[in-house]
Amino acid sequence: MIVAGAQDDAALFRRIDDFLAGYVHCIDDDRLEEWPDFFADPCLYKIISRENHERGLPVGIMQCDSRGMLKDRIASMRKANVFAPHTYRHQVSGLQIERRPEGKLACRSNFLVVRTMADGDMAIFATGRYLDRLTLESGAPLIEERLVVLESRRIETLLVIPI
Amino acid sequence: MIVAGAQDDAALFRRIDDFLAGYVHCIDDDRLEEWPDFFADPCLYKIISRENHERGLPVGIMQCDSRGMLKDRIASMRKANVFAPHTYRHQVSGLQIERRPEGKLACRSNFLVVRTMADGDMAIFATGRYLDRLTLESGAPLIEERLVVLESRRIETLLVIPI
Amino acid sequence: MIVAGAQDDAALFRRIDDFLAGYVHCIDDDRLEEWPDFFADPCLYKIISRENHERGLPVGIMQCDSRGMLKDRIASMRKANVFAPHTYRHQVSGLQIERRPEGKLACRSNFLVVRTMADGDMAIFATGRYLDRLTLESGAPLIEERLVVLESRRIETLLVIPI
Repeated sequence: MIVAGAQDDAALFRRIDDFLAGYVHCIDDDRLEEWPDFFADPCLYKIISRENHERGLPVGIMQCDSRGMLKDRIASMRKANVFAPHTYRHQVSGLQIERRPEGKLACRSNFLVVRTMADGDMAIFATGRYLDRLTLESGAPLIEERLVVLESRRIETLLVIPI
Repeated sequence: MIVAGAQDDAALFRRIDDFLAGYVHCIDDDRLEEWPDFFADPCLYKIISRENHERGLPVGIMQCDSRGMLKDRIASMRKANVFAPHTYRHQVSGLQIERRPEGKLACRSNFLVVRTMADGDMAIFATGRYLDRLTLESGAPLIEERLVVLESRRIETLLVIPI
Repeated sequence: MIVAGAQDDAALFRRIDDFLAGYVHCIDDDRLEEWPDFFADPCLYKIISRENHERGLPVGIMQCDSRGMLKDRIASMRKANVFAPHTYRHQVSGLQIERRPEGKLACRSNFLVVRTMADGDMAIFATGRYLDRLTLESGAPLIEERLVVLESRRIETLLVIPI
């Protein structure tokens, strides 16, 4: 993907890797009000099953296309609070970055989310891949599009916290 | 491992890390026909339990020693198709790289594979370490030897897709 | 976190990442007698639940504040040997590093530990974050403080091998 051995590509990789690590810690540490700031505006944040993604079906489990919608989602989650308390902890690996025209980047990585309930019970909540389009236009990286492709389709009703 | 601070070592690490990430995405995205291209020819791809590996017992769960054998394996898997449909998603971390004489590299990393069945059921399928010998002779990295050392020995009958 | 694009920061990141990968392989490969060598002396190694950490309660599940205590812990574990044989395999990702005054570093990362029993049974043993303070004073990196913040509080009785 990245042109091998190029110094500026190594520096770019570090920058994006750090940015995407920040995204994960923001969610896992329950600083969800900061989550929309990782996105450009407008943007696309979409959670979709692998099955629908591979069939080209546009039906997602969740979709937001502006920072406002991302903020609304967090706000209503904080207000409703009808779900059993739980936390997430992500693992993300296998990051690959590809340069695209006009300073855009295409990224992909694998994620695994373990959910821990208030009673201490831990379980695999979700696994799959992030398919991203990032922009560096404003200096700092921002997510223009994040497709969260879930391996499993048995997840919908439990999806409260973003992935 | 890598000589700290050396610029060319940072670039080498990026290159190998990207190559090994490509390996994982190839399997997880079910582009298995491309999988043998990650290997030199001849090569050694061997899956072995931690117990046998530590006792020095050569008995592996699976072993291929040429690209041809790797291709045969994928071909027969596609043809037989007797197993319940499922997908893998890898996490790989803790990569360390050591330079060896004649442009060879010794690598190690930890992996975790989550298997998702067609009905959506997810489970830890395998975890362990990759012990690799890579060559850069032909310009691009190639795997001369990949030892897949599994923590658990309860896996044999389910082993269809490569790890 | 790291100043974007700076070459020396990319080299520093590689060095710390390799050091922390070495920590994980040391534990997972059962070379536990080498584990204390990753720490400065005195040091702080503390395992604490997320709940207690966020409430500011100092009560940890385990705490060592010198290399001697770390060594004692391993020695008594080797001697007692009353627990069912099992191995760990870590995944660590999302590493972020921040420079602090006087050559110190603040690091954070997410971990996931899968435990495999002698009969082959695998399970998620622990997940959470490492919050570290490292020093580079002596040339090589050393851990001055490692806080292991566990998502779950249901773990105490099983905690034999360090995380």
